[in-house]
Order: sequence, then C-alpha cells, then structure tokens
Amino acid sequence: MSPDPVTVHGMSTSGNCHKVRLLLEQQGRPYTWIEVDSAHGGTRTPEYLAKNPNGKVPMLERADGAILVESNAILCWLAEGSTYLPADAWQRAQALSWLFFEQYSHEPYIAVARFIRGWTPLDSRRRADLPRLHERGMQALAVMEKYLAQAAWFTGPAYGVADIALFAYTHCAGEGGFDLAAFPHITDWLARVRAQPGFVPMPGVSDDVAVRLASS
Amino acid sequence: MSPDPVTVHGMSTSGNCHKVRLLLEQQGRPYTWIEVDSAHGGTRTPEYLAKNPNGKVPMLERADGAILVESNAILCWLAEGSTYLPADAWQRAQALSWLFFEQYSHEPYIAVARFIRGWTPLDSRRRADLPRLHERGMQALAVMEKYLAQAAWFTGPAYGVADIALFAYTHCAGEGGFDLAAFPHITDWLARVRAQPGFVPMPGVSDDVAVRLASS
Repeated sequence: MSPDPVTVHGMSTSGNCHKVRLLLEQQGRPYTWIEVDSAHGGTRTPEYLAKNPNGKVPMLERADGAILVESNAILCWLAEGSTYLPADAWQRAQALSWLFFEQYSHEPYIAVARFIRGWTPLDSRRRADLPRLHERGMQALAVMEKYLAQAAWFTGPAYGVADIALFAYTHCAGEGGFDLAAFPHITDWLARVRAQPGFVPMPGVSDDVAVRLASS
Repeated sequence: MSPDPVTVHGMSTSGNCHKVRLLLEQQGRPYTWIEVDSAHGGTRTPEYLAKNPNGKVPMLERADGAILVESNAILCWLAEGSTYLPADAWQRAQALSWLFFEQYSHEPYIAVARFIRGWTPLDSRRRADLPRLHERGMQALAVMEKYLAQAAWFTGPAYGVADIALFAYTHCAGEGGFDLAAFPHITDWLARVRAQPGFVPMPGVSDDVAVRLASS
C-alpha cells in the first residue's frame, strides 16, 4: 500500500521548506506543492493563519485536512519506520538532538543572515545584525565540523532526517556570507548528501534576490 | 527492571534544565544532578566542552559515559515507551511540532527576556532588545492561548513532553516581563500541569537575580 498523498505549503527557496521536498523526493512519495511567498505576506493571510496560527512555512496537509507544522517535525513523521529515522531509541534521540541544534543554534544565524542579505533592502537596519549572526553561525559550523571529524552522518549509522535538516541551510551558507573553506569535513559531508539516491537541489533564488546577494 | 540511573548536568533555575528534572521526578527515575553555573562560564570549561562542544545545559550522561544534549531530545528519550510521549505516529509528530515551536518561537523570546532582566546588569546594552523580545514572546503566547481554547494538553490526549517543555518558561514568563493575565487558557493549563502527579516546582532564583528582576 503506497502512502497517502500529502500537500506541502512552502516557499521553494526556503531551506526549511526544501527539507520536506528533499525527503519526499527521496522517498518517492506523491505530494502536491503549493507555493507560498512567505517573504511577502503569504503566511499572514487569514486563510493561512487559520491553518497555522504561527504563520510559518512549511506546513503539511493530509488528505483529511489534518495539519502538521514545523519542518523538523514533518521530517520525523515522514521518516517514521524508514531508514531516515533510526529505530534505536538512543540513536533516534541523538538525531532529534541535532534537529533541535539546527533550529536553535544554526538556523537562527545562518538562515537569518542569508535572509537579511538576500531578502531585505541593501540599506535595511537589520543588516547591522550580520556581524553577530556571523559570529554565532560560525560557532554552529565549528560544532558540526568537530562532529564530522569522527562520523559520516548526523542522523546516525545512515543518512537521514538530521542530515536533511542540517543540509538545508549549510549548503547555501555562502549566500549568508559564510565561507565554508575552513570546514573541510562539512564540505565533504555536503558532497555525500548530494550523492544520495533521489537527491534534488534547492531551486535557485529569484533574480532580485540574486542581485542583492551579489551586492551584500 | 528499573531504568539505569543517569546524571544530569544542569542549572537549576534554567527552564531548559528544569524540564529534565521535572520529568525524571515524575517518572521516579534515579538520577544524579550536577549543578553547572552556565551564567558564569560553567559550560565553557575545557572539561565541559569536551562532552558538549555546543557548550549548553542541560546535558544527560549515562552510566557508560554516553552523552545526550538538547533539553527536548532528552525529554523524548526519557519518555520513550511511556504516556509522556504519544505512541501514535501522527500524535507524536504533533508533540514534536510543539517541542520545535518551543525552541524556535517561544524560548528565544520569553526565556531570553527573563535572562536579560535577571542575569545581566541593569545598564546592560542587551536590555535594548527587550521590546522586540516582548513583542515576539507575546505572539508565541497568543498561539498557545488559541490552541488551549480547544485542547487540554500540548502533547496530545495526555500530559507529556510538550507540556513539560512549554511549562518550563511559560510558568516564569512574569520574570521575563510578560503579563499572563490576558491568557486565561494558559493560566488554567499551568494549574493543570502543577496538579500532575510528581510535579516539582523550579527552584527560585538567587537573591542577586531576584533583586535585578524586581528592579527591571
């Protein structure tokens, strides 16, 4: 029995949203993608907020209308019973630990730096935050680099949810102004992720975003 | 067979650390608590960083020396196979969703506002962040209030990990400068949590912190 199809509400150039697309593609699971421009109010409409009062993407919707939000919770649900989520309780907890690390110590610096550089005006006051974001983001990358010196995957014995979650904004950290040249283990791990069966790259940013990134 | 004893490295007045103590107490599980003063460098020693390169509390250590970090991952591991973590995959994903909400949309505002008010000097430049933290923290509380209008527990059918995680900094949001009077459903839920078997309150802050909170 193939799994029920799901609908994903997401912004394609958001790493948090690409996590969900990447796993769905790798699982070969049928899904419908509804593009939501969260950078321009798409998650603030009454219709969207009725489904997700926290007003964020991605959001997964089942055929029966049930809703699941938070990218890493969606990954865990999709991965249930597969090799993408460890069956062993201790190892699964370690994968969860990396998922929480990603959302607390990584994404708020690396993804937010990328957002500010690409999606806010060149004279935005938020750009004053970039030095602090870079400092903290570099600390997160250093934690990852240290771990990867002695392990191939964040999820555990095999590639899975924690690798997908951390790939999401690490692979485009350059757009946030981070230089990965000092992190050879991370660079190798990114290549291993890209070599996984069913891998799909994140769509490129729009022209206006690319111009701002090049000017930042 | 009773579970193996564990060691928790934590700061007692940290909500993230209290999550772990609360669940261990409610489970009646044997544990050793090692107090770590993370506000004064206790997580930045070479010995601590060797065990947790991300330099945060809480940290769980098994008898065999294996380490697990990230408060909400620790909760999930401790709760495995108990009513504190739903057995149903969809419901478990919903509980995880609230755990990620807590770490991304709640703790960085409510816990950080409390930290700045209580643990930084009265003339700290970080206090300039408080208006923004209050605005975002109020948004998180509003999301919780809306949910609690139609459900008793964040974890699912019963009290569990998501309630413990969200209780941690919601119950002391007043110390962060948040007034919960506008959130009657949250107030009722806090009382339900406190009435759970085995509930233990978070230890009070030290005198110097209390003085700063009273002056903030």
